[in-house]
Amino acid sequence: MSVFMEEIDAFTYREAVAGGAPIIIPVGSVEQHGPHLPLNTDVLLSKAMSEQLARSLNGLVAAPIVYGYKSQQRSGGGNHLGGTTSLDATTLISIARTLVLEFARHGASRIIFLNGHYENYQFLYEGAEQATSELAARGQDVSAVLVSYWDFVDQETIDEIYQGAFPGWDVEHGGVLETSLMLHLHPELVRLDKVMDLPPALLPRYDVLPVRRELTPASGCLSSAAAASEAAGELLLERTSKALADEIGAEIRAPRN
Amino acid sequence: MSVFMEEIDAFTYREAVAGGAPIIIPVGSVEQHGPHLPLNTDVLLSKAMSEQLARSLNGLVAAPIVYGYKSQQRSGGGNHLGGTTSLDATTLISIARTLVLEFARHGASRIIFLNGHYENYQFLYEGAEQATSELAARGQDVSAVLVSYWDFVDQETIDEIYQGAFPGWDVEHGGVLETSLMLHLHPELVRLDKVMDLPPALLPRYDVLPVRRELTPASGCLSSAAAASEAAGELLLERTSKALADEIGAEIRAPRN
Amino acid sequence: MSVFMEEIDAFTYREAVAGGAPIIIPVGSVEQHGPHLPLNTDVLLSKAMSEQLARSLNGLVAAPIVYGYKSQQRSGGGNHLGGTTSLDATTLISIARTLVLEFARHGASRIIFLNGHYENYQFLYEGAEQATSELAARGQDVSAVLVSYWDFVDQETIDEIYQGAFPGWDVEHGGVLETSLMLHLHPELVRLDKVMDLPPALLPRYDVLPVRRELTPASGCLSSAAAASEAAGELLLERTSKALADEIGAEIRAPRN
Amino acid sequence: MSVFMEEIDAFTYREAVAGGAPIIIPVGSVEQHGPHLPLNTDVLLSKAMSEQLARSLNGLVAAPIVYGYKSQQRSGGGNHLGGTTSLDATTLISIARTLVLEFARHGASRIIFLNGHYENYQFLYEGAEQATSELAARGQDVSAVLVSYWDFVDQETIDEIYQGAFPGWDVEHGGVLETSLMLHLHPELVRLDKVMDLPPALLPRYDVLPVRRELTPASGCLSSAAAASEAAGELLLERTSKALADEIGAEIRAPRN
Amino acid sequence: MSVFMEEIDAFTYREAVAGGAPIIIPVGSVEQHGPHLPLNTDVLLSKAMSEQLARSLNGLVAAPIVYGYKSQQRSGGGNHLGGTTSLDATTLISIARTLVLEFARHGASRIIFLNGHYENYQFLYEGAEQATSELAARGQDVSAVLVSYWDFVDQETIDEIYQGAFPGWDVEHGGVLETSLMLHLHPELVRLDKVMDLPPALLPRYDVLPVRRELTPASGCLSSAAAASEAAGELLLERTSKALADEIGAEIRAPRN
Amino acid sequence: MSVFMEEIDAFTYREAVAGGAPIIIPVGSVEQHGPHLPLNTDVLLSKAMSEQLARSLNGLVAAPIVYGYKSQQRSGGGNHLGGTTSLDATTLISIARTLVLEFARHGASRIIFLNGHYENYQFLYEGAEQATSELAARGQDVSAVLVSYWDFVDQETIDEIYQGAFPGWDVEHGGVLETSLMLHLHPELVRLDKVMDLPPALLPRYDVLPVRRELTPASGCLSSAAAASEAAGELLLERTSKALADEIGAEIRAPRN
Repeated sequence: MSVFMEEIDAFTYREAVAGGAPIIIPVGSVEQHGPHLPLNTDVLLSKAMSEQLARSLNGLVAAPIVYGYKSQQRSGGGNHLGGTTSLDATTLISIARTLVLEFARHGASRIIFLNGHYENYQFLYEGAEQATSELAARGQDVSAVLVSYWDFVDQETIDEIYQGAFPGWDVEHGGVLETSLMLHLHPELVRLDKVMDLPPALLPRYDVLPVRRELTPASGCLSSAAAASEAAGELLLERTSKALADEIGAEIRAPRN
Repeated sequence: MSVFMEEIDAFTYREAVAGGAPIIIPVGSVEQHGPHLPLNTDVLLSKAMSEQLARSLNGLVAAPIVYGYKSQQRSGGGNHLGGTTSLDATTLISIARTLVLEFARHGASRIIFLNGHYENYQFLYEGAEQATSELAARGQDVSAVLVSYWDFVDQETIDEIYQGAFPGWDVEHGGVLETSLMLHLHPELVRLDKVMDLPPALLPRYDVLPVRRELTPASGCLSSAAAASEAAGELLLERTSKALADEIGAEIRAPRN
Repeated sequence: MSVFMEEIDAFTYREAVAGGAPIIIPVGSVEQHGPHLPLNTDVLLSKAMSEQLARSLNGLVAAPIVYGYKSQQRSGGGNHLGGTTSLDATTLISIARTLVLEFARHGASRIIFLNGHYENYQFLYEGAEQATSELAARGQDVSAVLVSYWDFVDQETIDEIYQGAFPGWDVEHGGVLETSLMLHLHPELVRLDKVMDLPPALLPRYDVLPVRRELTPASGCLSSAAAASEAAGELLLERTSKALADEIGAEIRAPRN
Repeated sequence: MSVFMEEIDAFTYREAVAGGAPIIIPVGSVEQHGPHLPLNTDVLLSKAMSEQLARSLNGLVAAPIVYGYKSQQRSGGGNHLGGTTSLDATTLISIARTLVLEFARHGASRIIFLNGHYENYQFLYEGAEQATSELAARGQDVSAVLVSYWDFVDQETIDEIYQGAFPGWDVEHGGVLETSLMLHLHPELVRLDKVMDLPPALLPRYDVLPVRRELTPASGCLSSAAAASEAAGELLLERTSKALADEIGAEIRAPRN
Repeated sequence: MSVFMEEIDAFTYREAVAGGAPIIIPVGSVEQHGPHLPLNTDVLLSKAMSEQLARSLNGLVAAPIVYGYKSQQRSGGGNHLGGTTSLDATTLISIARTLVLEFARHGASRIIFLNGHYENYQFLYEGAEQATSELAARGQDVSAVLVSYWDFVDQETIDEIYQGAFPGWDVEHGGVLETSLMLHLHPELVRLDKVMDLPPALLPRYDVLPVRRELTPASGCLSSAAAASEAAGELLLERTSKALADEIGAEIRAPRN
Repeated sequence: MSVFMEEIDAFTYREAVAGGAPIIIPVGSVEQHGPHLPLNTDVLLSKAMSEQLARSLNGLVAAPIVYGYKSQQRSGGGNHLGGTTSLDATTLISIARTLVLEFARHGASRIIFLNGHYENYQFLYEGAEQATSELAARGQDVSAVLVSYWDFVDQETIDEIYQGAFPGWDVEHGGVLETSLMLHLHPELVRLDKVMDLPPALLPRYDVLPVRRELTPASGCLSSAAAASEAAGELLLERTSKALADEIGAEIRAPRN
């Protein structure tokens, strides 16, 4: 059976939920990722991570949240760039809140937001906080877990892949991590020949709005993907999936009072 | 080149938009469609229709709006059913409004919502109305077209396919139309053996809330899909696509003042 | 005793509600209806239908929702026209939601929205859906019925009145139906000499925004009212009221579980 | 010609607006007014005052805002009372804002809210403030005037009518002023025999929520209407209308820069 | 122990709340008060009144609501003036609603809004109304009291201080009352030499928006503060505090059913 | 002259703004900080940093945003704790948006949010993004800078103060940094004897809602403040202020196109 809710019928879905399947919601974005990666990179990667997690937890992958929060210059190049197509905060909060309430209505009690776009996190948090508070007030035991997958990449893997040249998560947009994962998962959508091998972006310790456009590199990426490889992608997927399965698995199996 | 925005990179996307490509936004739902169709039937069908239209108009298919407005009993069985996962009105309105504004920011001037879930229509309308009013107030010539694909199925095709037994659009949920199209487009996701061959639902001329659950047939479908066929799906796709391409094409090419 | 809530005092009202009177809310619009009908035609007609229904059901007619959702070109000529004065979606949703909650607070358990303006329907639905969900969550048995009165005009009556020349409900704006009803109910507000006898509007199978103004006939009406008559109005009122009383009456008397 | 927008057709309306007619919006409430006055007293009185003003200013009376803000204990008995049917703040603000924008779209440049329910005022103000700010930002010269009619009853008239026994505006709910005006304007809706001749309510200098219900007199009125008379109503209407016409007339004729 | 919540630690705070301490929320504004008073005059005065009340009631003073609703011309000079920095209605409503819910979550059951800026009142009311309704629906006995401190200045004190020259509360903005209180409480922030001794503002009996700027005196104050004195401030603080302590004290000690 | 907007009069304020003074808005929270720090620690620290910055830039410190976003378990212990008093996302977004628009109305063109509560950041960003977009659409050159002060503490200072025992910013809540700064700035509000010397909190790499309360240490702090000192506070204030003045100063002086 497919773990993707989208691909199964309602009767099969209901059975799985009645059996206690946790629901994993991939959250992506439609965002420029340079000339070598497709606009829905964050959707594809959060779906892939969600698929692995669903297999480990006997869960289901919900239809993804496709459009995410505005790209910010220090983590995604900025929302002024063509192709980047974003929602504002209130809309994303409402989506997150509503999905928790809807899956709870179906009978699910463990709901996981698996985030693939940095900027989304706090807004997913607010939506999940509102929904779980409402459910708790009605006496329903429903919990929501929020996680960004890169927080489960460990130091050892970083050292192996970057060989000491890790530029920092803040500039890992369209860089080695995402490109390697895409090479492993969707090679047909990656155009390595188009990678622009520029030095990491130098961005200030603050945000300024409207952004100063000149601070974003011409590629739209914040660091170079030149060192990306399919092997690194495989390793990242394997290790990160393992860590996610272990820790999120423990969380959703833990009794709550 | 792929017509799907999701699969192309930002540089390619910008070039297409700069060249005048209209943007077609498929709008679906995550909704039960009986035991024989997957939960994302409306997403798949609106994407397929959008793909055809994009090819005709040299346009691009935007990432879809995956979650739609609440299923209503008289058109989709009702929003109390497991699997059906819906947004409320304000959220869907915001999504529609924001997407028009974002694509306009990219430089697109013709944006088409291609709807595959009846209940969405008025909320897409409101979002598009707000966005185009704002853009007009700023002096930007951007127009939005809204269309539900079944409004382009003509009487002749209905007669051919239903052989006089057309139950009415109102009960065409999980019925012959959608099942035939799915058989043609995504046969691997259809389980014809699971079709529940029940008589068309008898629903009142009004809505009542909370719904009386007993009014929705056990299948969740409002009419039987037993007469569906791959050939009917092919015919429907071809004829409807042609009509859409002709009329929407004329609209977006027409000069506006 | 008047059936109009507006005209009675609070003590009388409370007694009626305590006795189980359903509340019927007329929903209209302030919208151009050509040169021969007043701007509040939809308010007057929904009030008249509500009055008949209230008499049959021993109910009360609430003060009307006077301003409705934006007029759409394919059903009301468009919201760009002078005189047409409309609310946006969220405001109308809030009004509908609040009225259900307020009448429930008074002790009413059956609330009926009797709609006289096509564009309102989905927004009333959302408001009623929100309110009845909230009430159900608190354990209160309150149901809301939503109905547009023209859905209760039967084929026989259409044949009698239009003599085979029925142009379709979609272009029945300021046409024979509304004008006949007004001739019967409020002849002093109708100026038959001003009717512009134009052919039915030819409108596309989609919406486009901003509207192309030239698609709306100069009259603002979508079909001609030339064939309207007081007798047809009387017949329409009688037959439609009867059908409404029968079906809505059965609904509100039916036990709910 | 009728001064009521509701009763005229769109062509006549457009002509009046093009000729510079100011638009006067009566704002009422659906609120208990004791056993002797109907629930829509505030609607009827604000309409009557608006009608007089429209005649003086060659203006038009818009369709009324029928439902108003929540009744407060110190000015209307409280919103816990049966029959009182109210909107919350955001909804009323939206209505006020939207009406200003709509009438401005029609071409009106002077819009007057004539308020008949104390509690509405600040919310009408916010809506008008938002709308006029938006219009000013677009360079449109549109002004909104806000007025509660009782602010134009002068001391002399109070002395004449109350003979020194004026209990204060704060407890003038369902009292001599409103009852006298209703006796003059709509005697058939007043049941003087039902007046409960209770002493004025003793209410604190603060609000407490939820209200202490025992603080509202059994009648729901805050002072007695026993001294009301048709003659007093005539005098009030005449004097107040005159004062309104003078001062509001001067305001809307004054040049704005 | 400080009565100011801001200055104490969470453990001490929890103990006080568990002991039944009412929470008093000062509500001010950032608003021009002429050349002689600081921009946060309303914050300082509502905090001072709150402090006195907290001491009498063994309560705590919450961190203040610093920014208030838009200044209105007839009570604060208007929101077009430099320095005046205001929130819109929905934001202020949300703040008031949230604070009641948060303090109720901590265990407080008596919450008092002590208002120092006229324009805030109705919006605080709406927020408190929403929150207390929600809490009542959940079965929680929490009440909110709303008070503007000047409503507790009695006639005797007015006569003593103004010696018959009381211009009315409506023009007491930056005038004798506020200036005297500030002279007593924060003399270092008052610059008496800067007082502009202008006649009271002559303002109409209605509001007009956008405001006619020429109606606000050059000082921004609506009456002159020339007669202010430290002694008058002391008297005002003492008398008003006493009256507040008596009446609000009685209210919060009264049993509720 | 005071750099605090709150303490100056409107005339002085206008002059400073007309002279180009940037506005610095301190953003804090009312949040438990263990038994040794007051509830408004974040307000006091962001005000102190703002004061230093204002002196360097000839700017003004606006009245602070006192209440912040919900405390999160991994950065502030969680919003279930008594004393912690928070706003939801939409309210904080509205406050941030409105303040930018208000200061821009006064004539300010450089506005800085100086954040002292981790959880606020993304919501301030959204508010500033909305406001600056609106202003840009109207052609107004206004920029907003967003900064959390701890992002300007450099590695060298960390090493000096923590002597290699830096637990990470994530658990620096009520720890050495905040306590040292408070000892330097407001020693009278710190009760060092109350510090609970517990090991740093062990928190997962994800969030779960509702929180598991047992994960927050009994102190409410995420690391121990035992090593705090007035000297460390002085150093932190000096170094951080210097870095802020340099970088933010350069930003606001830089020409924008």
